[in-house]
Amino acid sequence: MHQLDDCIFCQIANGHAPAYKIHEDELTCTFLDIFPATPGHCLIITKEHFSDIFEAKAEALAQVARNSVLITKALEQVIAPDGLGVYQFNRACAGQTVFHYHMHLIPQFEGKNIGIHSKQAGDPDELAALAEQLKSVLP
Amino acid sequence: MHQLDDCIFCQIANGHAPAYKIHEDELTCTFLDIFPATPGHCLIITKEHFSDIFEAKAEALAQVARNSVLITKALEQVIAPDGLGVYQFNRACAGQTVFHYHMHLIPQFEGKNIGIHSKQAGDPDELAALAEQLKSVLP
Repeated sequence: MHQLDDCIFCQIANGHAPAYKIHEDELTCTFLDIFPATPGHCLIITKEHFSDIFEAKAEALAQVARNSVLITKALEQVIAPDGLGVYQFNRACAGQTVFHYHMHLIPQFEGKNIGIHSKQAGDPDELAALAEQLKSVLP
Repeated sequence: MHQLDDCIFCQIANGHAPAYKIHEDELTCTFLDIFPATPGHCLIITKEHFSDIFEAKAEALAQVARNSVLITKALEQVIAPDGLGVYQFNRACAGQTVFHYHMHLIPQFEGKNIGIHSKQAGDPDELAALAEQLKSVLP
């Protein structure tokens, strides 16, 4: 599997960098964004390094999609958001900042109009506790 | 397959309403947004009626994901955008306006910061011509 030594998401995928992981399988890995736009903001990445959708293999993204359904159900159970935004940016001019394919799942709440990228880091203890809660409700 | 008589996307999926279709298979249908945020703005929908990701079946979204790779390659060949935004909204508070699962593929261009929903309808002749061009480059 093609991975890059200096890519933070490759490092998370292969366990060489820490992350608040919720789920992983052969093709994908899901963890909490450490700059959450809202509580429960998750990222689903491919384990293989694809810069973006222009490079990605269809079967890897099919697995991302299957897991987006799984993670949404966990978020519904633990966070009970009023809605969910799914965002996936490709190349800098589309707002991509980490150049390894990733899908944002961002819980939304009535009356709050939120941006995609928060400038404030989440509390590490809260992130760790939330990751455990989400993991515990996954099948 | 569960479909609703009064849902515009179900009507497009089953051929009872017109659309600038680019691609379809057993599970999904792709067509041009008639209020394009940018030229080439596509929607991929499930043929079965799911309100949103909270209701959707994993295998239907896996097929949406596979086709997003296919359509991205067609957009690259015909439109050559500088980037691509993938957006998928679930429930009103997340910005959803048609309550049938759909994924937006929105070509992005350097120096243009665009919104998601345009208020201006696309030109019908241009949309029809673009749909033909995109269809012609699909495998």
